[in-house]
Amino acid sequence: MKPVILIHGGAGTILRQEMTEEKEAVYLKALRDALTSGFSILEKGGSAVDAVEAAVISMEDFPLFNAGRGSVFNAEGKHEMDAAIMNGSDLSAGAVAGISHIKNPVRLAKAVMQHSQHVLLSGSGAEAFAKSQGLAFEDEAYFFDEYRYQQWKKMQDSDEYSLDHASRKAPDKTGTVGAVALDANGNLAAATSTGGMTNKRYGRIGDSPLIGAGTYANNKTCAVSCTGHGELFIRSVVAYDISCLMEYRGWSLAQACEVVVNQKLLSIGGEGGLIAIDGNGNFSMPFNSEGMYRGWMTNGNHDVSIFRHE
Amino acid sequence: MKPVILIHGGAGTILRQEMTEEKEAVYLKALRDALTSGFSILEKGGSAVDAVEAAVISMEDFPLFNAGRGSVFNAEGKHEMDAAIMNGSDLSAGAVAGISHIKNPVRLAKAVMQHSQHVLLSGSGAEAFAKSQGLAFEDEAYFFDEYRYQQWKKMQDSDEYSLDHASRKAPDKTGTVGAVALDANGNLAAATSTGGMTNKRYGRIGDSPLIGAGTYANNKTCAVSCTGHGELFIRSVVAYDISCLMEYRGWSLAQACEVVVNQKLLSIGGEGGLIAIDGNGNFSMPFNSEGMYRGWMTNGNHDVSIFRHE
Repeated sequence: MKPVILIHGGAGTILRQEMTEEKEAVYLKALRDALTSGFSILEKGGSAVDAVEAAVISMEDFPLFNAGRGSVFNAEGKHEMDAAIMNGSDLSAGAVAGISHIKNPVRLAKAVMQHSQHVLLSGSGAEAFAKSQGLAFEDEAYFFDEYRYQQWKKMQDSDEYSLDHASRKAPDKTGTVGAVALDANGNLAAATSTGGMTNKRYGRIGDSPLIGAGTYANNKTCAVSCTGHGELFIRSVVAYDISCLMEYRGWSLAQACEVVVNQKLLSIGGEGGLIAIDGNGNFSMPFNSEGMYRGWMTNGNHDVSIFRHE
Repeated sequence: MKPVILIHGGAGTILRQEMTEEKEAVYLKALRDALTSGFSILEKGGSAVDAVEAAVISMEDFPLFNAGRGSVFNAEGKHEMDAAIMNGSDLSAGAVAGISHIKNPVRLAKAVMQHSQHVLLSGSGAEAFAKSQGLAFEDEAYFFDEYRYQQWKKMQDSDEYSLDHASRKAPDKTGTVGAVALDANGNLAAATSTGGMTNKRYGRIGDSPLIGAGTYANNKTCAVSCTGHGELFIRSVVAYDISCLMEYRGWSLAQACEVVVNQKLLSIGGEGGLIAIDGNGNFSMPFNSEGMYRGWMTNGNHDVSIFRHE
């Protein structure tokens, strides 16, 4: 099997006129770096799980994506992160929600999958599990970013909150990150990580850490990682919907992705996109928003892009 | 449309030899009371959403079910509850995870659905939202029960945890509660509420509050509320799987329920059951465990039971 990895760095209102050439180059390099981190594992015969973890870690460490280090500020001025990972070969999965201080939330999701009896851990309890697993913690300073802080300050004390690039009123938000991969043994995996929404309140959890909604992998069908308006992705059970359309209706990955993203989600105002790959290496990166940071890599070939191809 | 309501009070290792006649009568009365609470709304032309909420509130207030007042103790000796509700007519949904002090978690889930821009709220943030909505809070004494306390004391300081009746080692655990209904206007709804697992750690969240896993409703297909080993229900996206088998494969509700509970879940060791109803009032209450507290009610007819019918 020819290995392939796909990544996204969030979908939403990413406007070409607000993107400088320098900024675009920085984003495209970050996408290439993440693809290389993941693909270098695949080309050595490594697993899809390890590849998606590595690609997501690379994006969590890049301060301009809204995940890990670059996570936005919530209503209390804190960073609250979610992540999930799923192994398509045995349907094992791990996820964390509402966690702080963890350097790489996707690593913690993987530890939950591999070293706990649970799928989803939350809050300070998840952090206690992270300690028991010896994962890296960081203080608030690590997650502090002046630009994100100013984003939050503008919204603080309002009821407004803002998603991944989703609002024209706040076009400068960055989004969820994710990766899906097919390894040389034919196994699929998916991972997603997010810093949530700027000024989010009430311990809100989006679709990213929810298996079947924002993240899903099954060797029989596909691996999917979503980004967008989480509430509508949850209500639509987006990732598993694509899997079911393939398994139960016999659709191709491309057909399922097109209908879910550009018809079903669009009809309820569900702005966003996703990356998906099937067991034969066919892949799709649909989005119904203005842009989506995205890329793919396979033996000797890759592509990264942000806007629609005209 | 002839209205129907179904409820469950948890599935698992409920052993006939450990059930006294008196105890059985108390459980069956609690099931009848919950059915009556929900059905009295349906027969007056009320909505499926209000009916499932009322039935679940009745079970949350009954101390022998593991939800609301009867919630089990977690590893810290606290009560941490989850709940969800979904409206099949517009796919709106609300859920809460890891909450304490809230008298009726299903009421909070409904408030999230109807009065927030979110689907899933967690922890102290969800409690802050509950305050803003004027929901009833209770102190620890309300949730205290000597029997549950002794259950927990036996397990405390061990790594053991225990589900809804799921372990023969701890056959006295009670489970999740839930309700699904079809109202006179042909609308479906589902709700689920749980006090989690005795001695649970790490902020574990099960399938109950996860839309598509433990709770799902869609007028086009069915309404489903699950109970059982949550981790396997999450990985199998159980509730939405039943909906997809109906919508995409054209199966009947009964056929979809049978395959998901007695084939797919059983093959991965996923002990538990569910209640489900379709838009024509056909319903199914499959379980692969020894028993499931359950019942249904329609005009002039009802049934409640715990064990398998021989």
